[in-house]
Amino acid sequence: MSDKPIVGILMGSDSDLPVMKKAFDVLKEFEVPFEVKIISAHRNPDIHAEYTKTAVARGLKVIIAAAGMAAHLPGVTAGSTPLPVIGVPLKSKSLDGVDAVYSILQMPPGVPVATVAIDGAKNSALLAIQILSTGDDSLLKKMIDYKEKMGEESYAKNEKLKEYL
Amino acid sequence: MSDKPIVGILMGSDSDLPVMKKAFDVLKEFEVPFEVKIISAHRNPDIHAEYTKTAVARGLKVIIAAAGMAAHLPGVTAGSTPLPVIGVPLKSKSLDGVDAVYSILQMPPGVPVATVAIDGAKNSALLAIQILSTGDDSLLKKMIDYKEKMGEESYAKNEKLKEYL
Amino acid sequence: MSDKPIVGILMGSDSDLPVMKKAFDVLKEFEVPFEVKIISAHRNPDIHAEYTKTAVARGLKVIIAAAGMAAHLPGVTAGSTPLPVIGVPLKSKSLDGVDAVYSILQMPPGVPVATVAIDGAKNSALLAIQILSTGDDSLLKKMIDYKEKMGEESYAKNEKLKEYL
Amino acid sequence: MSDKPIVGILMGSDSDLPVMKKAFDVLKEFEVPFEVKIISAHRNPDIHAEYTKTAVARGLKVIIAAAGMAAHLPGVTAGSTPLPVIGVPLKSKSLDGVDAVYSILQMPPGVPVATVAIDGAKNSALLAIQILSTGDDSLLKKMIDYKEKMGEESYAKNEKLKEYL
Amino acid sequence: MSDKPIVGILMGSDSDLPVMKKAFDVLKEFEVPFEVKIISAHRNPDIHAEYTKTAVARGLKVIIAAAGMAAHLPGVTAGSTPLPVIGVPLKSKSLDGVDAVYSILQMPPGVPVATVAIDGAKNSALLAIQILSTGDDSLLKKMIDYKEKMGEESYAKNEKLKEYL
Amino acid sequence: MSDKPIVGILMGSDSDLPVMKKAFDVLKEFEVPFEVKIISAHRNPDIHAEYTKTAVARGLKVIIAAAGMAAHLPGVTAGSTPLPVIGVPLKSKSLDGVDAVYSILQMPPGVPVATVAIDGAKNSALLAIQILSTGDDSLLKKMIDYKEKMGEESYAKNEKLKEYL
Amino acid sequence: MSDKPIVGILMGSDSDLPVMKKAFDVLKEFEVPFEVKIISAHRNPDIHAEYTKTAVARGLKVIIAAAGMAAHLPGVTAGSTPLPVIGVPLKSKSLDGVDAVYSILQMPPGVPVATVAIDGAKNSALLAIQILSTGDDSLLKKMIDYKEKMGEESYAKNEKLKEYL
Amino acid sequence: MSDKPIVGILMGSDSDLPVMKKAFDVLKEFEVPFEVKIISAHRNPDIHAEYTKTAVARGLKVIIAAAGMAAHLPGVTAGSTPLPVIGVPLKSKSLDGVDAVYSILQMPPGVPVATVAIDGAKNSALLAIQILSTGDDSLLKKMIDYKEKMGEESYAKNEKLKEYL
Repeated sequence: MSDKPIVGILMGSDSDLPVMKKAFDVLKEFEVPFEVKIISAHRNPDIHAEYTKTAVARGLKVIIAAAGMAAHLPGVTAGSTPLPVIGVPLKSKSLDGVDAVYSILQMPPGVPVATVAIDGAKNSALLAIQILSTGDDSLLKKMIDYKEKMGEESYAKNEKLKEYL
Repeated sequence: MSDKPIVGILMGSDSDLPVMKKAFDVLKEFEVPFEVKIISAHRNPDIHAEYTKTAVARGLKVIIAAAGMAAHLPGVTAGSTPLPVIGVPLKSKSLDGVDAVYSILQMPPGVPVATVAIDGAKNSALLAIQILSTGDDSLLKKMIDYKEKMGEESYAKNEKLKEYL
Repeated sequence: MSDKPIVGILMGSDSDLPVMKKAFDVLKEFEVPFEVKIISAHRNPDIHAEYTKTAVARGLKVIIAAAGMAAHLPGVTAGSTPLPVIGVPLKSKSLDGVDAVYSILQMPPGVPVATVAIDGAKNSALLAIQILSTGDDSLLKKMIDYKEKMGEESYAKNEKLKEYL
Repeated sequence: MSDKPIVGILMGSDSDLPVMKKAFDVLKEFEVPFEVKIISAHRNPDIHAEYTKTAVARGLKVIIAAAGMAAHLPGVTAGSTPLPVIGVPLKSKSLDGVDAVYSILQMPPGVPVATVAIDGAKNSALLAIQILSTGDDSLLKKMIDYKEKMGEESYAKNEKLKEYL
Repeated sequence: MSDKPIVGILMGSDSDLPVMKKAFDVLKEFEVPFEVKIISAHRNPDIHAEYTKTAVARGLKVIIAAAGMAAHLPGVTAGSTPLPVIGVPLKSKSLDGVDAVYSILQMPPGVPVATVAIDGAKNSALLAIQILSTGDDSLLKKMIDYKEKMGEESYAKNEKLKEYL
Repeated sequence: MSDKPIVGILMGSDSDLPVMKKAFDVLKEFEVPFEVKIISAHRNPDIHAEYTKTAVARGLKVIIAAAGMAAHLPGVTAGSTPLPVIGVPLKSKSLDGVDAVYSILQMPPGVPVATVAIDGAKNSALLAIQILSTGDDSLLKKMIDYKEKMGEESYAKNEKLKEYL
Repeated sequence: MSDKPIVGILMGSDSDLPVMKKAFDVLKEFEVPFEVKIISAHRNPDIHAEYTKTAVARGLKVIIAAAGMAAHLPGVTAGSTPLPVIGVPLKSKSLDGVDAVYSILQMPPGVPVATVAIDGAKNSALLAIQILSTGDDSLLKKMIDYKEKMGEESYAKNEKLKEYL
Repeated sequence: MSDKPIVGILMGSDSDLPVMKKAFDVLKEFEVPFEVKIISAHRNPDIHAEYTKTAVARGLKVIIAAAGMAAHLPGVTAGSTPLPVIGVPLKSKSLDGVDAVYSILQMPPGVPVATVAIDGAKNSALLAIQILSTGDDSLLKKMIDYKEKMGEESYAKNEKLKEYL
């Protein structure tokens, strides 16, 4: 990542990295500069406050926050920055990710978090790009191409049917 | 609304209007031009396809889609446009809105929907504004002011404590 | 499949094939001609619209649509065709298929989807045959025989009890 | 209803009548002859067995069965007839209808029930008509007209927007 | 089993045998004569009706019925016999047994099923013995001894603590 | 109640009385002598222990225990007596009775509770009578008559259909 | 409250006051000095950080935090103070309080929150007193008396039975 | 453990030891003397009553109780002692620990249990230490140091990011 990051990705724990790596890949593919930090809302509240409060000044435009269980990181981030915050609920050992969904989605009026599917790392990055595209026509163009290619690849899988019929 | 709309709000039914009105109010407060349409993904598929396919050309930058029950409107919209789509799961007579949450949130890789809380109309508009702010500094400034004022109003409610102690 | 298909089977992804193969087997056993397509409601909306709108004219009488997560394929299909649509909710990595059940079952008034059990591929084919039987007495006769044989085979399993007593 | 019934509607209790009345209205609108019986699977097992076993001979082509709580009526009906059975899960005092959904939807392989939404009486009738349409072109024609009219009425509700903007 | 059975155990499928074997073991330990049948409520409705209607005359005093998914077997059995029916909800591939719990537990007024825990085969047999004990003092004596021994064995496990401290 | 009670009914709170009254009515109808006590497992542990330990000696044969929320009363009762214990999960202000269902139903191996439906007071009494009937033929006869009458009354409700057709 | 507060009660919104008032009453009854603040974790993050970081120095010993929906207040408080934090999940308009339960209960290893029942304001205060009692024998004595009195009052409700028998 | 225990840890079964061992480790690290007992609330009610009633006199200050399924041990313990009781819901074979959460959390007014996350053994010990710290300043000092170290270790994991970027 040579450029100054415009997307910040936060995770509560390094154990979230294998899932979240898919977001890194998408952002690289679209050549959107990003940074990644492991900052627990519960274990590093001061570092977290510092990070979110300086986010606008440092040039960030969107923050992706991923967390499992009582997943406070996305909501607490949204409380400390005017930037759009995307929340990724992660599946953990119990409850199949439902705890994280409710902890991220059910934000009170005034402080939205843009929640994506359980373990939806790839979609969090695509959503960040769509958000950035509202102010960047070249990125919008890339997204249009991406979706067209995705449709073609998806439909090409009809080739596989032969094995089953 | 004098200006050309940059936010489109879709609903599946006119019964969703009382809840979604809160989104209209927020967008008006921020002076963000928007349009509203009642288009059911299931009952008006052609009108819906026309609407979403022409959205970019017509100048829309964000779409908010609200639906209850098997709430397909946000996801189907996200499938037909490169724009960011915000989904509002609505509570209906049964299941307390859980059906709508799962129908909106659990989108497959490649097609994100930015889901907000159940009946989260107000937050859907605030999120739309945050999204637009990534390409509009004056809107970002307004959002910073809004959050500051919201914090002050919230804290001012400590006045109410006297009645209870 | 020599004959012109009267049952269309849709899937959102080729990963659904191992589960849905059981539906193919049943339709073959009953000698009901069918076709299979992998068409994502979200990634191939135009192909999907074309497929569903021409379904009646091409001679289809029933459509089976299988999908997981925010499973919109059955409902969106039902919105674009007057034919009966059978929905098969597929179990995915999280939520045990509950997301798909609610996304398929909870259709609004006016647009039913005939939902079967989670991963209920076999039952989706049997239901399609029962539906076709309402206008085809020879098929109804086959179904009566099938159920009788199934009852006999099921009861024959009492032989296995010896191992356990 | 002058004609010989081709749709049979079963309910476990007379308390289900206010919800199920919507199914009667749809069938009347389409001029599909039907009959209604209150037969509890648990309290009238013999009457139920007699009803289902003679259904084909009496000319029935589809059975709609509605029940709440541990809603066995649809599944037990499906076990005793080769006809397609549509199940309507009813909301009761507790559990918001989830108990009925699982009791009706999760049928084992071999015995499908075409399940519709909670309290989905109207959709159960529309599905019955779609099923009958597979062998009756005039009914298919009526369904095509119905869906067109429904789309128009739904879209006409955009008139209501004026009050909210 | 030399004696005339007084407990009947029903299962919908031979796949339930490995779980239900624990019930057989308990009944043997208490020397309570029992019989086992694999009778699907959906696939063998006539055999099932015959079995339940003759149960009292054949000397049965309690029936245990185990089933998974849309688990109708216990409730349908309770509808056809005045004997107490114990229902065992079985865990299946999806939904962790919740579907079976609701299908068995939520019986309407008038037709109770004595439901035990998910996969609670052992407890179903112990409950059957407790039921029989209300009319058989020697069995009550055995149950008192069984509970005392169980308490002792349970407490003896404190020996294991050494490994962990 | 002139006779010595053979059924004991326990409740955790007097607020459970309006629901549980239906159990009293059934037992009176069958002329089964019973006693009722309000004993909280959490607030009156000693009284509860005294009650359950003396239950057999005092002539009780079945205990019905009703509780809501973290409903421990049925399970704790089952831990202190060899008698069959019937648990009635009560619906409370939150969670629709699901908390009580899980707290009562999911008993560990060795200590069954015969769980009935949420707020299933009537069924708890009928189950108690079925249990007693295993050792009392006159009671079994009454139960057979009761079920026959219930079936007739249920079917008689077909009279109501006229209003709806 | 004349004395220096040792219990701090936090709420996210003044709408939580009617439920939380029960906690105030209990603390007054036990003469435990407390303070109450309305501080939203999302709207007043700086005030919240100031409050929690100075809590020990100001003499607080226990903090009770109540919140609904994506209830982050208890967990975020626990992240910023070494004091024991009691979380009260509040029921809101949707989801019956389950969202708040999961958001409060499912804290990651290292940062516990002592969670009580949904709307369990009274129990939060009693738990705070039990916690304080571990270092205050006179308070422990009061708690012992309280529980004794509570048991007596609970059992006295058997008087009410007369109306129902 | 040479010192007189001030924390008592109860488990219903020896199968809970592998999970609960993490609590032992934390208490040892903080040098808090504790004792462990396997006492089933259902299988050893008398031993349990003896244990809880003598807890204060024997010098215990906090009790941790862990249980799965219909997890009554924490609540029943809380009913028999004035000490603060921490409940640990354990995940078992079905229902992912939700049954244990509801059985432990949803205690009625008057008898709180301080519930921690599913399988939250480590947090149960940390909470016990926080509770003891309210009356022990040296323990409070240790807790402050522990949280600081935990924050540092957590943040140090940013080292791992290199592998993923």
